[in-house]
Amino acid sequence: MTIDLNCDLGEGFGAWQMGDDDAMLGLASSVNVACGFHAGDPDIMRRTAELAKARGVSIGAHPGYRDLHGFGRRPVAGLTAAEIENLVAYQIGALQAVAALAGHKVTHVKAHGALSNVACEDDMTARAIASAIKAVDRDLIFVVLANSKLLKAGEAAGLPLAHEVFADRAYEDDGNLVSRRKPGAVLHDADAIAARVVRMVEDRAVVSVTGKVIKARIDTVCIHGDTAGAVGIARAVRQALKEAGIEVKPFNAR
Amino acid sequence: MTIDLNCDLGEGFGAWQMGDDDAMLGLASSVNVACGFHAGDPDIMRRTAELAKARGVSIGAHPGYRDLHGFGRRPVAGLTAAEIENLVAYQIGALQAVAALAGHKVTHVKAHGALSNVACEDDMTARAIASAIKAVDRDLIFVVLANSKLLKAGEAAGLPLAHEVFADRAYEDDGNLVSRRKPGAVLHDADAIAARVVRMVEDRAVVSVTGKVIKARIDTVCIHGDTAGAVGIARAVRQALKEAGIEVKPFNAR
Amino acid sequence: MTIDLNCDLGEGFGAWQMGDDDAMLGLASSVNVACGFHAGDPDIMRRTAELAKARGVSIGAHPGYRDLHGFGRRPVAGLTAAEIENLVAYQIGALQAVAALAGHKVTHVKAHGALSNVACEDDMTARAIASAIKAVDRDLIFVVLANSKLLKAGEAAGLPLAHEVFADRAYEDDGNLVSRRKPGAVLHDADAIAARVVRMVEDRAVVSVTGKVIKARIDTVCIHGDTAGAVGIARAVRQALKEAGIEVKPFNAR
Amino acid sequence: MTIDLNCDLGEGFGAWQMGDDDAMLGLASSVNVACGFHAGDPDIMRRTAELAKARGVSIGAHPGYRDLHGFGRRPVAGLTAAEIENLVAYQIGALQAVAALAGHKVTHVKAHGALSNVACEDDMTARAIASAIKAVDRDLIFVVLANSKLLKAGEAAGLPLAHEVFADRAYEDDGNLVSRRKPGAVLHDADAIAARVVRMVEDRAVVSVTGKVIKARIDTVCIHGDTAGAVGIARAVRQALKEAGIEVKPFNAR
Repeated sequence: MTIDLNCDLGEGFGAWQMGDDDAMLGLASSVNVACGFHAGDPDIMRRTAELAKARGVSIGAHPGYRDLHGFGRRPVAGLTAAEIENLVAYQIGALQAVAALAGHKVTHVKAHGALSNVACEDDMTARAIASAIKAVDRDLIFVVLANSKLLKAGEAAGLPLAHEVFADRAYEDDGNLVSRRKPGAVLHDADAIAARVVRMVEDRAVVSVTGKVIKARIDTVCIHGDTAGAVGIARAVRQALKEAGIEVKPFNAR
Repeated sequence: MTIDLNCDLGEGFGAWQMGDDDAMLGLASSVNVACGFHAGDPDIMRRTAELAKARGVSIGAHPGYRDLHGFGRRPVAGLTAAEIENLVAYQIGALQAVAALAGHKVTHVKAHGALSNVACEDDMTARAIASAIKAVDRDLIFVVLANSKLLKAGEAAGLPLAHEVFADRAYEDDGNLVSRRKPGAVLHDADAIAARVVRMVEDRAVVSVTGKVIKARIDTVCIHGDTAGAVGIARAVRQALKEAGIEVKPFNAR
Repeated sequence: MTIDLNCDLGEGFGAWQMGDDDAMLGLASSVNVACGFHAGDPDIMRRTAELAKARGVSIGAHPGYRDLHGFGRRPVAGLTAAEIENLVAYQIGALQAVAALAGHKVTHVKAHGALSNVACEDDMTARAIASAIKAVDRDLIFVVLANSKLLKAGEAAGLPLAHEVFADRAYEDDGNLVSRRKPGAVLHDADAIAARVVRMVEDRAVVSVTGKVIKARIDTVCIHGDTAGAVGIARAVRQALKEAGIEVKPFNAR
Repeated sequence: MTIDLNCDLGEGFGAWQMGDDDAMLGLASSVNVACGFHAGDPDIMRRTAELAKARGVSIGAHPGYRDLHGFGRRPVAGLTAAEIENLVAYQIGALQAVAALAGHKVTHVKAHGALSNVACEDDMTARAIASAIKAVDRDLIFVVLANSKLLKAGEAAGLPLAHEVFADRAYEDDGNLVSRRKPGAVLHDADAIAARVVRMVEDRAVVSVTGKVIKARIDTVCIHGDTAGAVGIARAVRQALKEAGIEVKPFNAR
């Protein structure tokens, strides 16, 4: 039994850093690299690609809205489908070229922040993201949240998909994430998170806040790198998977 | 006999426009598309690629320094070779991906503004640009100024090269451009420029300000799109070439 | 009888221009100067302030969302009241200081684009704008649209107000602007616009699309500088006011 | 005997942080607040001004080149005197207005990074900075490095000056800073730095790398907040000054 652990990385900009990239590169098997619109720059992208290659970690483009100041967390209203396609394609291509300098290869795409949140609920945005990926390279793996418009758009586009669950987010009975505005939406206890990840992977299911078991295809588990305690949680997850005999491998190698 | 006419294009940003792209797309055979660092954005890149494809005009990446406010005309000091590689690769890749959305293909690279000026005289910068192009795609044609470090770097990298002369710039006896700070550095008379271009192409030579004839390989002639009278000059050049029986074709099709 | 004509100005950025600032400075009596977040930069602000001073035109800050790429026309979601206060104050102060270099003085504030549109309907945003103006200088005149939350927020803050109508926008029976998404929302005929402005100023009333006369305090009429035909319309308005014996004067001098 | 300790602060941007502002606000008596061009944003400026006010720390504008990506450390070539005036005035005014929201007041100006380095050696740049300060408010204290063009420009402009020495930088025999490219340019030992600061303040002199004693007016000592060990060094300096009976007070209160 194998599973992929994915993590956002390369989220600094210029002189500014975010999270402990070095530690997370030793714990994740796939990393989502910021491409310069909400975070990241060509130098950080190069360094991240080099480090990932050296550690056998696969890399993906992590396109976001053009919003350095808001870190891509603010929805940008009024974009057309073509404008979303354009900004997604631009960012994927930018990372592909910088990765080439590092001798590495982009193998997946995962939308960032508000772009992802909007796309999970908005057909047009989701389809535009899928359409951009397909135009750039139809073999890129599209990382999608279960039950989301992203999943539907990826299926409609015929892209290879990686179904994702979150290590530290609570789920509603209908399989959606509990809103961050509700208490208990984000889990913080490393041991509890680790046990939960093992169970999700073994059972191929998520357990909702009410205890409901929801069967789900699970290709990758998202772990966070930029929160307090992120590294500790990631270590606990990794260790628990090892003890359960589950191998951590990039989804494109599974 | 054929020649390529190249022109910088897609140099707007967001709501701002620069030059008459539509007119120039009917006159140039290759266009250098701004990639978002000094001008251009994903939407303008897409539109430019679509229009170029529809008209049979080939497109190239036109990477510049990260300097929207200065339009890439201010030298950025202190960049390492790796940092130059990174920003050049980033911009090429971004255009490649956006061009894919338009069903077009990037076939050349030409450095913009201060990045080009610095690279013409600085080995490290020139080699970093060539190195980035090679890493991204060793079949991309590198547009280089005769006698420059760019030419040397392109040769050393083994890249396919397009040798370039300027339609409206005066040349020194040593084959270098007359500095823009000197009077007469830029020509403005459309008929004189047109006659000069025909002569350069027919004779495979540039004539210096003192009348010296300097033999040169000439693959492409740079015409400007953003100056007053640019469209009129380009029309005169195109017409004069036609009357001289010289066909205008993209260099990658010659 | 006097009236103020206000117009957005200084909306270029770096090498890019927008509209015919020189012509509009001869037609408007007050100009709203972009402050660098959606358009404008310190150099353009300085030049605009110098030209305005030379022509006896008063200047105001025209703060917008941080959105150069979208020209401040996209709503930015999720900002707190404090964040809106901060970006408004920042932009006002920046213009005040640059105006000092030009020997001119900022006498009013008018919100730009999406920030204005949101504030017209959202109490929190409107109050944050008013609060920022008050903290910076409680003598600054706040330009507000009739019937809007901006007007209410300005009254509550005790700021001097300039009530504004639009020369080229149609009005609903309730005094609100007809949505730009509806046909007929924007008028284009210079003579019709000019006649309408004279009538609005003489009658102190706007006439709705159904012919309803809505009494209104009118201190300033907004004319546009960045649309096709903008200068022609502004000239027609100015001429018609002259013929009607209405003097055009900055509102702070009335 | 009193001395001012100044420190750069508010150097984050959006979601990114830099240094330990909270700790440094308890150790410095004057802070130089980034104004959004190389670092800082309206929200961080507001928060910094509020914290500084609460702790009785005076604030100054810390204008830099427009260069978020390079943190203002790269010289920007080709700016005219007017363009430097404009960007300096813009940033001062922006902080003044945001400080007003916090109920605090800007009392000094200190140039940042490459803008400061260039100005220390370039008359035109130094005079442009002084000219901008004077136009905005001639009572602002101009923080200048001894022996620099900044000092001369400030004197010529008749601005109130604060003469500055660096706690952790070695000095040449001629009173200039040892270039960062030379070994030993930056001191790292907290106790050595603390002892040195006390001696400089007591003796009103700096001691060069060869042991030469150079008499100097010293109004403020620059301590760093963004390097490893910065807080520890600042604490050692503060403690050593206390033990020597030297009171730390903002220069505008001395």
